[in-house]
Formats: sequence, C-alpha cells, structure tokens
Amino acid sequence: MSLLVVGSVAFDAIETPFGKTDKIIGGAATFISICSAYFTGRSNLVAVVGGDFPKDDIKLMEKHGVNTEGLQIKEDEKSFFWSGKYHNDMNSRDTLVTELNVLENFDPVVPESYQDCEYLMLGNLAPQVQRLVIERMNKRPKLVVMDTMNFWMDIAMEELVKTIAMVDVLTINDEEARQLSGEYSLVKAAAKIREMGPKYLIIKKGEHGALLFHEEEVFFCPALPLEEVFDPTGAGDTFAGGFIGYLAKHDDVSFESMKRAVVYGSAMASFCVERFGTERLIDLSDSEISERVQRFVNLATFTI
Amino acid sequence: MSLLVVGSVAFDAIETPFGKTDKIIGGAATFISICSAYFTGRSNLVAVVGGDFPKDDIKLMEKHGVNTEGLQIKEDEKSFFWSGKYHNDMNSRDTLVTELNVLENFDPVVPESYQDCEYLMLGNLAPQVQRLVIERMNKRPKLVVMDTMNFWMDIAMEELVKTIAMVDVLTINDEEARQLSGEYSLVKAAAKIREMGPKYLIIKKGEHGALLFHEEEVFFCPALPLEEVFDPTGAGDTFAGGFIGYLAKHDDVSFESMKRAVVYGSAMASFCVERFGTERLIDLSDSEISERVQRFVNLATFTI
Repeated sequence: MSLLVVGSVAFDAIETPFGKTDKIIGGAATFISICSAYFTGRSNLVAVVGGDFPKDDIKLMEKHGVNTEGLQIKEDEKSFFWSGKYHNDMNSRDTLVTELNVLENFDPVVPESYQDCEYLMLGNLAPQVQRLVIERMNKRPKLVVMDTMNFWMDIAMEELVKTIAMVDVLTINDEEARQLSGEYSLVKAAAKIREMGPKYLIIKKGEHGALLFHEEEVFFCPALPLEEVFDPTGAGDTFAGGFIGYLAKHDDVSFESMKRAVVYGSAMASFCVERFGTERLIDLSDSEISERVQRFVNLATFTI
Repeated sequence: MSLLVVGSVAFDAIETPFGKTDKIIGGAATFISICSAYFTGRSNLVAVVGGDFPKDDIKLMEKHGVNTEGLQIKEDEKSFFWSGKYHNDMNSRDTLVTELNVLENFDPVVPESYQDCEYLMLGNLAPQVQRLVIERMNKRPKLVVMDTMNFWMDIAMEELVKTIAMVDVLTINDEEARQLSGEYSLVKAAAKIREMGPKYLIIKKGEHGALLFHEEEVFFCPALPLEEVFDPTGAGDTFAGGFIGYLAKHDDVSFESMKRAVVYGSAMASFCVERFGTERLIDLSDSEISERVQRFVNLATFTI
C-alpha cells in the first residue's frame, strides 16, 4: 500500500570520533523515505527545503524511490541545518548548531496524488505541523505512526499531547519515554503513554534494542552487536522507515506483523550507523537486507 | 549431573529507594547454590563463614537443596560483610562497607564426596582461590564457569588472567568486559577475552539483557521489562546459578543448550530483583519458573 512520509529534509554536519563531515544531506524524512522505499518501491514525501538544497540530491532521492512531488522548494530561503558532535561512547552528543530556516514557517501541503495513502509516517517535526498533515488527508490513513523528540516535550508539550492522541503508533527513545510519562520504569512509562492515545508504543533503546508495547503484550528486538558504530545520526529515523515500510508493503497491521516490522526496522538501522549520514542507505541490495535480517533471527532465536 | 559451587556466603546490608535491610544473608555462592538447586535438586557448596553466621540460615540453605558439607565454619572469626546503597536508577551503587573477615585467608577444601562433580561454578572470589578449587579437583570437571568482578581487575589482574585461562565460560558485566579487554565495543571486547582462554563468554548488561559469545556465534537474551526493580543485589549470581543449574540438569553443553541456559538464568534473575536478598529465591515453585520462562519466549519470539 502507498506510504506518505513527512518530516525534515535538511543539511547535517556531523563529528564523531571517526571523523567529520561538511554539510551532507540529512533530516528525518530523508532517512525515512529512502529507507522505506526499499519496501514500498515508492515513498511519497512531504517536506520543505531552501534554494540552497542541491538539485542533484533531490534527483538522488528520486532515484532511490522517493516521490518528491510534495517537496516544497523555497528558492529564497535556506534549508534546515543541524550540526552535532558525538562523544566517545556514541550514546550522547552535543548539538552545535540548529538553524530552523525554512522549517520555521513550514505549511505542509499534501498533493492530490498522495491522498490515497493508507500509511502515514510523521517524522520528527513540530507536533502542530504533524497534526496538520493528518487533518489535511481527505480520509484518515489506515495506520499513522509518529516519531518525536524531547525537544518538543521541552517547548511544546501541549501541542505534542494533542498530536500523540491522534496516532496509532508512537516511537520514542527511552529517555523521552521517561520524560513524557514522568515514570522511570519503562513498563510504567509505556502504560501511561498508551493511555495518551497510541495503541502501540515503540521505545527505542539505541544499542540496547527496542521494545514494542500493545495491550498486555510486549516484544523486544535486540540491536545487532556491531564492531563499530560509525555515526548514529538518522538511526532512529531509519528504524521508523524500515518499520512503516515493512507494514505498508505487507499491508498487515497485526501484532505479529508489527514484531517483524520492528526487526526489519532494526536491521535497516544497523546499516545506517555503519557510515556517515545516508551513505550506507543508498547502497543496499535486497540480499544484503535479507542476510542482515537473518542475523537478527540467529541472534534472538532459542527453543525451550 | 552433580554441581559444585564455590564463592562467598556472607552478610549483606542493603539500601535501595524502596527501603533498607539489617544484616541479611547474601554472598555469591548463597545465591548461586540456592538458585541452581531448583535445577539440580542438590548443589554442593564450598565456602567459609564465621561463628556469627546463624545455624538457622545454614539449615535454610540445606532445606533448599544446598549440600553444606563443604561449608567451613570458623567459630572464632566473623563472616564476610558487605553493605551498599543503590542510587535511584538502580544501575549504580556505592559500597559503604566491605569487611573481608573469614575470606581473607580462605583455603577452599573440596570434600571427597564432591570429587565426582562434572560441573563447577566459580562464584566471585579472589581469582587465586577460584584457581585452587580447579586444582583441587582430582579430575577436571566437564564444564567450568567463572564469574568475577572489576574489583579483581583493579588489584589482582595477573592472578585473574591466569584463572580465566583455565575456564570454559566466563560471565562478566559490560563495564567489566570493557575494563578487562581495553575495548569499548562489546564485539571487540568479546573477541579479545575469548583469546584469553574461555570458549564461551557471557556479557551481562543488567536491565539490558545478556550476550553469549562462542566462535562466530552470538546470542542475545533480553531482560524481562519489570514494573519495579526492588533490589538488584545477587541478580548476576542468580543468573549464573540458573545458567549452570540448567546445564548440569540436562548435561548438555552444546551452544543450543547454552542459549536455553541463558534464558533460564535470566528468568531466575528476574525473580531475584523482586525482593530483598534471597527472599524471592527461597519461595519459588516449578510452575512459577515455567511461566516466567514462557514470558521470555513471548518477549523474544518472532517469525520472518
């Protein structure tokens, strides 16, 4: 089934213990749409960039299955820019620069040709903008998945809570789940957050894997133990892209299907961290993805 | 098959955000032997206590399947005492008191009736004492599992490395694996540590689960997501007790069996943290254990 992805398309400048980049393409929707297109064949993007965004990078996204009809280009403005530096343990980072630029007044337009999308992925953005996209769909999609960040909990909690109430699946990391719920225990946090609306909650724990909560059930998918994490930027977005891409491809939103989708999301994220930015994501074969998923099967399977 | 357990039998005084205890029974070998006896029926203990150790507690251990023939009682000395206080996140703790007492000159004696033990669990102790136990077995056991701590890496690295070279399975936590190997990546750390001798390495990550490494294979078992961790003291020892107890019961040291043993160890540890000290461990039914293991199956199982 067709998939709509909304979120930032941006420039990132990244420094890790392994090196640093100049401005490279990044942004939640970039990772999500490129990653999900491995599953859907074509992912429909709603985003905004400035006139400084290279046309070649838009072509690159198109080549990787991203429909950019819904990508607004504000010729006289600048693209969203984020710069960050990771600490030695790769689990924490300092934000060096955040320039909202075109995102400051982003008014998301959903093209007519996207209106039949059954799957909607709300990548990290201002929650009021995420909500506008839901409202601008003629028909509510079959499944709405939302990612967000602590940033919005700090400055826009009221808006965030309103949007969370409208989605089916929320994906956040462990610290954000604690902040959003006021509970340290992730089990208690999950219960409180599901009371806010989402029937499904995914708590991402980075190198410690991901938890999927639904009613009385809980599923855990480990992260693949890697020799090196080269650059974690975009790993959570790539996870989301694999997750919703898998669901949209199979058009099955049962709990069993969601478990598989979490595994596929984790597998795609394990590629993402192997190189800077989207570098590894634009270079994958179907057999590499199958082999990677098989490593998750081997890692987690036991019989009693 | 029969199992020999060596380690400390001691007093603990514990403070957590949920409360504090007076001196209660603790010690690595206490947790390991009580836990493993659920699988083996009877676990053979080698340890030392002072005259201050209550005879009733020794009877309690006997009642729970611990053979205390190898428990030395130094009537004129005092038992090992440890006191600690957990921080709010339960992941870190301060040691308030460590009194080695009888452990200072512990000379482990292996009773003749223990000499046929095929499984040997070396609970956390001075590495030279752990080694003495291996040397005092007439015949090398079929499987030797060793647990240790950062404490010995700080003060007795040379002795520790000698003992590690003699064992089949080493269990340590993630920070200790990093300290022992000098590698931050657990994959790299595991490779280096296995070069030191052990064919199998288990890296315990507390609430983040456990990894089992062997040759090119790696298995991950999650920790059960719990509403509350009441007291983590002894969780690692309980894990070790469930792990070796399962292996000894089934007398199967294949990788598939070790994976199941890691799941059983994790299930037993999930009970341990529900109350103070050994309280929960002396109160378990077989059906509770089976149900708990089933929760791990539900938590980790997916089909692709």
